[in-house]
Amino acid sequence: MRVPATHKIAIVPEPGGPDAIRIVERPLAALGADEVLIKTAACGVNKPDTFERMGFYPPPPGAPEGQGLEASGTIVAVGTNVTNFAIDDRVCALVSGGGYSDYVIAKAGSTLTVPDNMALKTAAGLPETVFTVWANVFEAGALKSGETLLVHGGAGGIGTTAIQMAKAHGAHVLTTAGSNEKCALCERLGADRAINYREEDFETIVRDEGGAHVILDMVGGPYIQKNINCAAFGGRIIQIAFLQGSRSEIDLMRLMLKQISLTGSTLRGRADAEKARMASAIRTHVWPWIDQGKLTPEIHRTYALDDVASAHQLMDDGGHSGKILLIP
Amino acid sequence: MRVPATHKIAIVPEPGGPDAIRIVERPLAALGADEVLIKTAACGVNKPDTFERMGFYPPPPGAPEGQGLEASGTIVAVGTNVTNFAIDDRVCALVSGGGYSDYVIAKAGSTLTVPDNMALKTAAGLPETVFTVWANVFEAGALKSGETLLVHGGAGGIGTTAIQMAKAHGAHVLTTAGSNEKCALCERLGADRAINYREEDFETIVRDEGGAHVILDMVGGPYIQKNINCAAFGGRIIQIAFLQGSRSEIDLMRLMLKQISLTGSTLRGRADAEKARMASAIRTHVWPWIDQGKLTPEIHRTYALDDVASAHQLMDDGGHSGKILLIP
Repeated sequence: MRVPATHKIAIVPEPGGPDAIRIVERPLAALGADEVLIKTAACGVNKPDTFERMGFYPPPPGAPEGQGLEASGTIVAVGTNVTNFAIDDRVCALVSGGGYSDYVIAKAGSTLTVPDNMALKTAAGLPETVFTVWANVFEAGALKSGETLLVHGGAGGIGTTAIQMAKAHGAHVLTTAGSNEKCALCERLGADRAINYREEDFETIVRDEGGAHVILDMVGGPYIQKNINCAAFGGRIIQIAFLQGSRSEIDLMRLMLKQISLTGSTLRGRADAEKARMASAIRTHVWPWIDQGKLTPEIHRTYALDDVASAHQLMDDGGHSGKILLIP
Repeated sequence: MRVPATHKIAIVPEPGGPDAIRIVERPLAALGADEVLIKTAACGVNKPDTFERMGFYPPPPGAPEGQGLEASGTIVAVGTNVTNFAIDDRVCALVSGGGYSDYVIAKAGSTLTVPDNMALKTAAGLPETVFTVWANVFEAGALKSGETLLVHGGAGGIGTTAIQMAKAHGAHVLTTAGSNEKCALCERLGADRAINYREEDFETIVRDEGGAHVILDMVGGPYIQKNINCAAFGGRIIQIAFLQGSRSEIDLMRLMLKQISLTGSTLRGRADAEKARMASAIRTHVWPWIDQGKLTPEIHRTYALDDVASAHQLMDDGGHSGKILLIP
């Protein structure tokens, strides 16, 4: 019997710091008709997990219990409606909860086969960032080959993925990061110009480069106006978080004069059908870049699942570049 | 000889109040190959004209001399490349300047035939508002039949046109206006609900109606946040002016969570080819509504061209509903 009766999950009984997370044993839920059960190789840690831990980002209604939004591993059971996956398939999946676990239940529609040329653990770093970049840079932002993308936080999980996907797509990529080491990583991943925001003003540099057609921003605060100022005519600015706050004094005159579109989105609360639609598009458009060696998650460090507190502490401190993984 | 050597235009030697406008005689420019010469029946007065008069809205580079962005009349000459218009055609045209004149030079691409069922003078009230509503509500906003449009300033030139076009398209239309009389006009033109903003809070009412999918706003200032708050999931907010200012303290959290798009545009500075493309779409999609009696400019009052100062005074006072026309 490969399907266990229980699995470990990570819960937060009381919001707080990294130590607020508890690993507990829970009965494994019955597998839904459209779900797959994955014996986990690795789980990805994402910034929203830390907000959830602090009580600022409650899970959407109906989300599985426990922290964690992505995992990779081997399929050990499939629901009665699932025809495109089988036992022993190597997969990674986007989940709306319960991703920090030794056995993860995922919707088949949000599950993707791991390409042969990628280590199974590494693939745990794909779903959250690839879905996010696809939904925001490629769908909402409609980035075209030859256009300029500005992605903030270039050395983070989203940033390292956005740089590689945009370059594979033929875009000119500008990015910001907080140290020269992080900037070097961004340029190694393909960024045409990485801007150390502690030393240089990104608004001036991006404007001098002709402006950005798409801007992916998770910073907010003072960046909101600066993004508007350095966007190109017809530019699309997409907010996926507000690490420096969502409230700001903003002058929209240049937004109107330059026909800029300012929008944003979140991923976790989207309907399963919407995620399945995106997964299909990602399989078609993004997965070939993995086969071609143009996209691989930048893994900063792995921790044991039981040491999840250390992983969150590192995420809170912000000294990392790329993804942090948990190994159950 | 039907083409005169000179024509009257309205210039503003020094920015100022309505009396700053001077009617002067100028040599008529040579007709370009892609242009038509219109013997004017009427000229439309628009809010941007008053901003230009006050020195706040300089004409785009290359614009013809003189105030005025639209006119109707009869064609008296056509350029050598013009094949789709002939002498004596009844037309109206969007121009990037020089519209307050007895003889107006227009790009053939920005010129439209006046439907048989419309008085030639009335048609002077069509171009500026129809192009603006088309570009922003239908193109940028992609308003769908069955969706809800919120248009501010419902009793103004843009508002009265937006209400009729959106209703003809099958949308649910909410609007704001500053008096019960103006609200009654909006509802007579087809608005499902006109909100007197001096007595009621539009944000609450629109939210109670399920939110607006498209919001056309020329107010700005405190309306920016209220628009975000009452937009539906996936809503598109389009700024076409900022009568109460473009700068405001804004919280974008709900913009991200509701995947709202905030954008804007201006019409006058667009390239001729872009205006020609829009004119073609308008001919196909909007002009039939005129034939069907679903769209007619709401004309508030006409003035003699020589009395342009009175027309601008009325526009500045804001007591009008619908369009103000000048008769040369």
